[in-house]
Amino acid sequence: MSAYLMVGIEGAAPRLVERSVATISAQDRGFLYGDGLFETIRVVQGRTPYLASHLERLGAGAATLLFPRLPWRLDELAAACHDLIRANHVTDGYVRLTVSRGPAARGYEAPPDPTPTLVMQASEWRPAPDLYTAGYRAVLSSVRVSAHSPLCRVKSLSALEKVIARTQAAQQGCNEALLLNTDGYLTEGAATNLFVVREQRLLTPALACGLLPGIGRRQALQLARALGYPCEEGFLTVEDLWRADEAFVTNALVLAVPLTAVDGRPIGHGGRPGPVTAAILAGLRRAMGIE
Amino acid sequence: MSAYLMVGIEGAAPRLVERSVATISAQDRGFLYGDGLFETIRVVQGRTPYLASHLERLGAGAATLLFPRLPWRLDELAAACHDLIRANHVTDGYVRLTVSRGPAARGYEAPPDPTPTLVMQASEWRPAPDLYTAGYRAVLSSVRVSAHSPLCRVKSLSALEKVIARTQAAQQGCNEALLLNTDGYLTEGAATNLFVVREQRLLTPALACGLLPGIGRRQALQLARALGYPCEEGFLTVEDLWRADEAFVTNALVLAVPLTAVDGRPIGHGGRPGPVTAAILAGLRRAMGIE
Repeated sequence: MSAYLMVGIEGAAPRLVERSVATISAQDRGFLYGDGLFETIRVVQGRTPYLASHLERLGAGAATLLFPRLPWRLDELAAACHDLIRANHVTDGYVRLTVSRGPAARGYEAPPDPTPTLVMQASEWRPAPDLYTAGYRAVLSSVRVSAHSPLCRVKSLSALEKVIARTQAAQQGCNEALLLNTDGYLTEGAATNLFVVREQRLLTPALACGLLPGIGRRQALQLARALGYPCEEGFLTVEDLWRADEAFVTNALVLAVPLTAVDGRPIGHGGRPGPVTAAILAGLRRAMGIE
Repeated sequence: MSAYLMVGIEGAAPRLVERSVATISAQDRGFLYGDGLFETIRVVQGRTPYLASHLERLGAGAATLLFPRLPWRLDELAAACHDLIRANHVTDGYVRLTVSRGPAARGYEAPPDPTPTLVMQASEWRPAPDLYTAGYRAVLSSVRVSAHSPLCRVKSLSALEKVIARTQAAQQGCNEALLLNTDGYLTEGAATNLFVVREQRLLTPALACGLLPGIGRRQALQLARALGYPCEEGFLTVEDLWRADEAFVTNALVLAVPLTAVDGRPIGHGGRPGPVTAAILAGLRRAMGIE
């Protein structure tokens, strides 16, 4: 574990704090109401290739949450992120950036003039040696999400639905939980976006189904198109999983992981990672400068 | 504001802490993922008439959230609650009790052996002088909730959907936001349960519509039946609001507040509080020992 966190309490400039004494008010709305946002940013050889995309999404999310503004400029957050990485000597890993609406009196209604809280933590992390060969086994979660909630489109601190789904998956010996919306369409994994490959075409649930516009999802779509694979964002059902040649899931940390089984049923040809998934993973690693 | 909070960090016994120094770890899952529960308990003349119901719901919620157990016995929490009320000399007000899954490493998946965090705050509170005569004006929120999510049935720290709905209502000069589910049925207010009165009968959305089993809701149903009003839990639409003779909303703090207008349209006879609502409120106040 790293020694330092970066914190900005009540809108103050970010500063390094020793992990053991990094605390927030017990009346912070992040703690009381899950009222805030986060980003998980991959670090490669001390660099953060997609930091600008993460900070852009953070700014958009703050608007969705009706924050009047963030007290930190995005370039200030980027500088703090790099200071934290250096202070903790992180080479390959991640930064988790958390912004809450800060402390306030009781009640759901947001204060008109909040003093947000910032917490950033950095840590070494590398994929498990067999991550890309073994892939993920997933369950279909019994949780159904609403496509008509602002929450499904932001990476919010109100993540308990995903906590429950992913914990239930782990209790069944699986790595991920796939969530359907209340209309029965596939949306995403609890911590990942979903892709299905069929006849050399990539299919992924459209944002209208109710899912996070993942940074990894966008990179995978851009890359696939550049590689000449036709891509379609649409309305996918469980049947699309059963008919898939391959499937994979993406996020900013793992990039693209083969989905080898869902509810115990092998995906594609015997549940083995497929060649299109391998091509996407290789391209994403290249784009991030991972050897 | 009260001087003391009651905290129990990493499962330790609750103890009184001065408000200004009451902090939690920046890596608490309550802060990172909205991973926990809360209760708001009304205090009447230093007593807590429905504390046992709140603690019972807290225990049920912990099971829904897949907590292996709570580290505090319910009688221990009740004693801590009363110690806090006495320390702060609260006569009439509330206690907010918050339990999170405690600090843990990154990732949605819950640790198998969590060390939960407890925070209790107590404060004086009295209804605004005109609360029961002016009533609440509500908006119909554009947020649609999923009836197929475990979250709608627990009072969780992942409350951002309600924060957004209630904040949007306030921006329109209203007091509450009514939420429909994705099938178009009424569920509840962001911070209240909903009742409609028609021809001396009480109608309220069934739990299957996706809503919190409110303590105030249960008390209102029991009382209405005792007073001889037929009660029905069912599938209500917006049309039921327009056809209502009266409507009111309930929670543990405000008890029963007349709903006088929705989206600017008066409810019942000219948007005036009705006699059935008044009878329910009077009965709830009597049952709590409020003069």
